Amino acid sequence: MSETTIESPSTADPAELAARLAGDRPADIVEALNEHNPEVAMAVLLNLPLEVAVAVLDTPSLGDAAELVEAMPRDRAAALLSGMSADRVADIFHSLGETTRSDLLPRLDPETRSAVRQLLIYPENSAGALMTTEFVSVPATWTAAQTLQHVRMVERTRETIYAIYILDPRTKVLLRALPLRRLISADPDLPVLAAATPRPAVTVSPYASADEAARLISKYDLLAIPVIDGTGHVIGIVTVDDVIDEMIKRQNEEVQRFGGMEALDESYIDISFAKMIRKRAGWLCALFLSEMLTASAMQGFEGELEKALVLTLFIPLIMSSGGNSGSQATSLLIRALALRQVGLAEWWRVALRELPAGLALGAILGGIGVARIAIWQLLGIFDYGPYWVLVALTVGLALVGVVTFGSLVGSLLPFLLRALGFDPAAASAPFVATLVDVSGLVIYFGVAAMILRGTLL
Amino acid sequence: MSETTIESPSTADPAELAARLAGDRPADIVEALNEHNPEVAMAVLLNLPLEVAVAVLDTPSLGDAAELVEAMPRDRAAALLSGMSADRVADIFHSLGETTRSDLLPRLDPETRSAVRQLLIYPENSAGALMTTEFVSVPATWTAAQTLQHVRMVERTRETIYAIYILDPRTKVLLRALPLRRLISADPDLPVLAAATPRPAVTVSPYASADEAARLISKYDLLAIPVIDGTGHVIGIVTVDDVIDEMIKRQNEEVQRFGGMEALDESYIDISFAKMIRKRAGWLCALFLSEMLTASAMQGFEGELEKALVLTLFIPLIMSSGGNSGSQATSLLIRALALRQVGLAEWWRVALRELPAGLALGAILGGIGVARIAIWQLLGIFDYGPYWVLVALTVGLALVGVVTFGSLVGSLLPFLLRALGFDPAAASAPFVATLVDVSGLVIYFGVAAMILRGTLL
Repeated sequence: MSETTIESPSTADPAELAARLAGDRPADIVEALNEHNPEVAMAVLLNLPLEVAVAVLDTPSLGDAAELVEAMPRDRAAALLSGMSADRVADIFHSLGETTRSDLLPRLDPETRSAVRQLLIYPENSAGALMTTEFVSVPATWTAAQTLQHVRMVERTRETIYAIYILDPRTKVLLRALPLRRLISADPDLPVLAAATPRPAVTVSPYASADEAARLISKYDLLAIPVIDGTGHVIGIVTVDDVIDEMIKRQNEEVQRFGGMEALDESYIDISFAKMIRKRAGWLCALFLSEMLTASAMQGFEGELEKALVLTLFIPLIMSSGGNSGSQATSLLIRALALRQVGLAEWWRVALRELPAGLALGAILGGIGVARIAIWQLLGIFDYGPYWVLVALTVGLALVGVVTFGSLVGSLLPFLLRALGFDPAAASAPFVATLVDVSGLVIYFGVAAMILRGTLL
Repeated sequence: MSETTIESPSTADPAELAARLAGDRPADIVEALNEHNPEVAMAVLLNLPLEVAVAVLDTPSLGDAAELVEAMPRDRAAALLSGMSADRVADIFHSLGETTRSDLLPRLDPETRSAVRQLLIYPENSAGALMTTEFVSVPATWTAAQTLQHVRMVERTRETIYAIYILDPRTKVLLRALPLRRLISADPDLPVLAAATPRPAVTVSPYASADEAARLISKYDLLAIPVIDGTGHVIGIVTVDDVIDEMIKRQNEEVQRFGGMEALDESYIDISFAKMIRKRAGWLCALFLSEMLTASAMQGFEGELEKALVLTLFIPLIMSSGGNSGSQATSLLIRALALRQVGLAEWWRVALRELPAGLALGAILGGIGVARIAIWQLLGIFDYGPYWVLVALTVGLALVGVVTFGSLVGSLLPFLLRALGFDPAAASAPFVATLVDVSGLVIYFGVAAMILRGTLL
């Protein structure tokens, strides 16, 4: 028998692994570390050359970064954090325990410390929390040549140098933004201001949402947007990289919440079983509890059900049609609101559109429903009883009502949630379905009571 | 009575509007034009200075760009297109009619024409279709100073100059990518190759998906990624701007398809009523037709329903729980697959995780369901009959079965769709709900048959 054993990734020697990874791109090292458990990842990190370890920890896709920092010797952690960009450090600080935070903050180098302190003021998901304080600014009195020389000198210590901010030499207020491409082709002896476009820079407030910063960057094709305070001073920039990371994170959250669950912060494979169940059970239980209203509604119609059992056959069909049309309208309006195609005050325009749309869609489905009952009856596939025409009519009209109601409620709920200060994407779809399920039953039995009174009921 | 009339946006004088907009940023002009109908937008476009009109037409968020080009005098259209970036022209060409295409192509300036011809080869949504051919490349033998001088000269005609591609002087094969920031701080007299990192550039094939290009750009924090052919030659670049536009478009489509509809290409407010109904009705009808299977399933259980009417009360609750757990699992796995947290071959690992997860979640909901029935019965709120304990047990066990089945099917369907070559995000969620609705009924009545045989059934 051979003596060799197969090493699983988690038992690999960290020093050896570090030596093997050291030459790779930081993003690739991150990917490799994410496949190991946090202990191994930390051991590898401690074995990497300092500047490589800094670049790795600086990458937002690294899993459990706060956990790694927490577990490290404090001095080593402080050395790594001091080399990182301030926005990423603030990001990690947001997830650290209070003790670790107050332990680490005084150990950071003074520049990083004050930048991090400033960034921690702003609420999570604001432009202020997303920004970095490492940007390039020059007074308007400098020449293009002076500016370029300055950019060369500070290049290594700035997150981006592709946007240069020109300030009033006295008040330090932002005058213009200058893309590096314009600077390098500018006349070196002219003032730097001459190279900039005559339009004021596009800016964002630190309290604006990260979404808003992303929208402006994408609208104006910027590589960075300056964040300015109330007095017109640049306090940081949000770069296009941050925006992309933010968009990926948001997209994740949106899809997961759309599917009716809390967003997972970890990857599907990495997250522990207990944590995943917790994240999923909460929403499922909330939806289940509200769906219990359907049982109550059905109990209220027990008399009708007993007399006209044929009605139960179409309950799932009618409920799901209402749910589908509702979630369709919701998803449509969530996007329209997010992309600012409609404003919050235009809810009545949407209602005026969804009412005929719901009626038209309901009529189409109702027509198909009536046809299905007629065909089954006339071909003898199933016998819906002597009043099958009235049953078909009930199903058809109920579908018109349910789809119209679903479209209206589904389209207006995002407005209501937004007006109440919630994120429409976070909650709408599954709740629309539940709301429409219950009211769909009421509509169905209401229509049945009108049409079948005196015959079946 | 006054003689003045209020002008609606669509009757405003195009020349006047053009004069008013000419000084704005292109993205803002686009926003203003999108609020007018295509005829007015075209008239304004023709009244803008040529270079402004080019910048406006070059902005991807301009609505109906192809329609505008189609309606313009051919020579004017050719002049505008010749000034635009080749990737955007190719994009517009994809949506033009065959006649207009073959009319316009020969009128373009030779450089744009050959670039557009090349771009039109690649399938839509590929990196090749997304790329621009306007990039900066230099032979490896040049010095940093020579390269910087070249960059200065070509700046105005390149989509981006922030990434410079260093080629083998003889074979023209890509050797390295050099960020502009490294170039400007490099020793001017040394060869340009010395300023680049020793690692080969991250590249992408023209036939890779646009998604893949986006993933690489975001993973490696690039401003552009070179697209190389089979022989290692750079044929274009995909820039970070394109990637952001692509991500927004995809996010739109994903959310709308998640909500069960075809993605709208136009904004909610702009799209015509008939077109919106068409886009929405198709999916609603498809879902409706598959949900009809629930009616057939119910018909099959008519005998049971007649004997145990109490079972109908919980049909909506059980169906929706299966649907919710299914769409939860689907949304989770769609993201995990998109972010490559799991590979296609790992479906069995997912199944092994979802089976216990479904059982645990089902047990939680089942427990709540049993408690609800017991409480209502014992407090005298509703009478579920003499066999209420068995009814509660039926509902509880059915919930375990339905939630487990929903989680399994919901998590595995994205794998199946991906394996069959479909986009999992495009179809999964609504179809999981339908699939689970029908099988939920079967599970419910199956459990009922086992538990209630000899008592209610």
